[in-house]
Amino acid sequence: MTSPASVVLVFLDSAFPDGRLADASQPQLLVTDQGATRGDGAFETMLAVGGNVRKIQAHLDRLDGSGKALDLAIPGQDQWRRAIAAAIAEHRSQHPPVSDADDELVVKLVVTRGAEGAAAPTAWVQVSPVGAGARRQRETGIDVILLDRGYDSDAAERAPWLLLGAKTLSYAVNMAALRHAHKQGADDVIFFSSDGRVLEGPTSTVLLAHVDKSDDGTPVKRLITPQLDSGILAGTSQGALFKAAKEAGWELGYGPLVPQDLLDADAVWLISSVRLLAPVNRIDGQEIGTPSLQKELTAELNELFAGIQ
Amino acid sequence: MTSPASVVLVFLDSAFPDGRLADASQPQLLVTDQGATRGDGAFETMLAVGGNVRKIQAHLDRLDGSGKALDLAIPGQDQWRRAIAAAIAEHRSQHPPVSDADDELVVKLVVTRGAEGAAAPTAWVQVSPVGAGARRQRETGIDVILLDRGYDSDAAERAPWLLLGAKTLSYAVNMAALRHAHKQGADDVIFFSSDGRVLEGPTSTVLLAHVDKSDDGTPVKRLITPQLDSGILAGTSQGALFKAAKEAGWELGYGPLVPQDLLDADAVWLISSVRLLAPVNRIDGQEIGTPSLQKELTAELNELFAGIQ
Repeated sequence: MTSPASVVLVFLDSAFPDGRLADASQPQLLVTDQGATRGDGAFETMLAVGGNVRKIQAHLDRLDGSGKALDLAIPGQDQWRRAIAAAIAEHRSQHPPVSDADDELVVKLVVTRGAEGAAAPTAWVQVSPVGAGARRQRETGIDVILLDRGYDSDAAERAPWLLLGAKTLSYAVNMAALRHAHKQGADDVIFFSSDGRVLEGPTSTVLLAHVDKSDDGTPVKRLITPQLDSGILAGTSQGALFKAAKEAGWELGYGPLVPQDLLDADAVWLISSVRLLAPVNRIDGQEIGTPSLQKELTAELNELFAGIQ
Repeated sequence: MTSPASVVLVFLDSAFPDGRLADASQPQLLVTDQGATRGDGAFETMLAVGGNVRKIQAHLDRLDGSGKALDLAIPGQDQWRRAIAAAIAEHRSQHPPVSDADDELVVKLVVTRGAEGAAAPTAWVQVSPVGAGARRQRETGIDVILLDRGYDSDAAERAPWLLLGAKTLSYAVNMAALRHAHKQGADDVIFFSSDGRVLEGPTSTVLLAHVDKSDDGTPVKRLITPQLDSGILAGTSQGALFKAAKEAGWELGYGPLVPQDLLDADAVWLISSVRLLAPVNRIDGQEIGTPSLQKELTAELNELFAGIQ
């Protein structure tokens, strides 16, 4: 949870080349904005470290993709980049980072279909501190439960109006799934499809690792994620980490995965742009992998991930 | 589409017994409101005729039900009723109805989970004129296409976190389905489940009628709607019309229905609170029923429906 006082807000506005700075603690949206009344829009959540947004191009490209799925005009990437830079600079000026370890900011991009009857979308950048919970879960790991997402793994391909590959503002189901997990004492959720395939977390991508011995005795490390055509969001963090892991000699794999694959893995993570790699300790109460190997693999992947711009 | 100038806005606010009147043409929501950033909240859309809201109790009860599904504290019904009365009175004072036929208003209730970090939900009533499109479609009827909703008809029962019986603000899929229909030259959509059952429209309930001869030659009229446990929203208009139709001697039926049942019906309608009964002329290009019988049944049901408070 973020108090509005620590949020820096910059609207994209063609009259202001670097965006229009606004006060996030004051009302800024019309009640007829279709973001608020229909969850009709798209968003991205990014991490800035030392003032630099990580994977910014991948996020801007995915936002464009969400816009295409929604038939929604997304402002140009240059306009976003200027507004993002202005918002981060303003936040660092208002709240100078205390230490290098503390120098992380959440940068959220939001585009709605605009107010009813308006010709243009509403678009803004908001910059805020990283919550304590996200930082803690990187270290302690998380307990997750498996929940049915209701869709079968072919739904995305046959029914594009379901917007399964888009990151829309309609996140009520994702939030309800997280509340369901919290009531059961768990931290997070891994969704599976109605035909039993592992999909994704409500706000993250699923990764798992296997370490095997090759014929000559050297360890072979494999990093695996569900395949995209099952109707999940293309994870920008997963994409970047896979690239780095491949260069470091890991083998890569893509689903289909079933829940048993998670239980049989040497380690499982939920990966996302702000919380980064959250090691999964338990799934539906069952311990995953071995703690020492999980720790070692997490450290190795964290190091690879830290090198990503 | 509604211009903000013709919208009367009243926030539910414990400091104001009849709600707090606000200017809908000015920003009133924080950008961190979880209605805007997560589609996290619930709503109702009602029709006021001559200043009286139709089926108000059914709408307030359904809003409470959506709140339960969302774990969201919904303001009390008395508080809503006072704010609704104030908003309607204000609209009729600002924009006096020109004629009895013109004396219809859309009354929308919205509750969001509030701004991030806030203790209370954001809740408001907005009152605006009925759009010309809705009035026209009551008369002319509509063309619809059938679209897959992705969920099977058991999903609602086994996975309550999918919020299938709740009227949430996360309507991006419903809006995308309507855009998909418009691109194909159609007006609206009837969703079916992945296991082939007729569900509902994106903003309406499906009705169909059959007229048969009984053994003694008198006509037997049956009104049929999909069964609720297939994961559709309980239609307040369908519920009220069924009650009135039963009293008028109609037989009632509840699904499961398959698309062929729609094509075989004597008439099909999409029913909702503002557009009321919209006769379906064509489904996927195929004409439904016979125009003269459809007209006759529509007139009869409209008369029954007009008597509902």
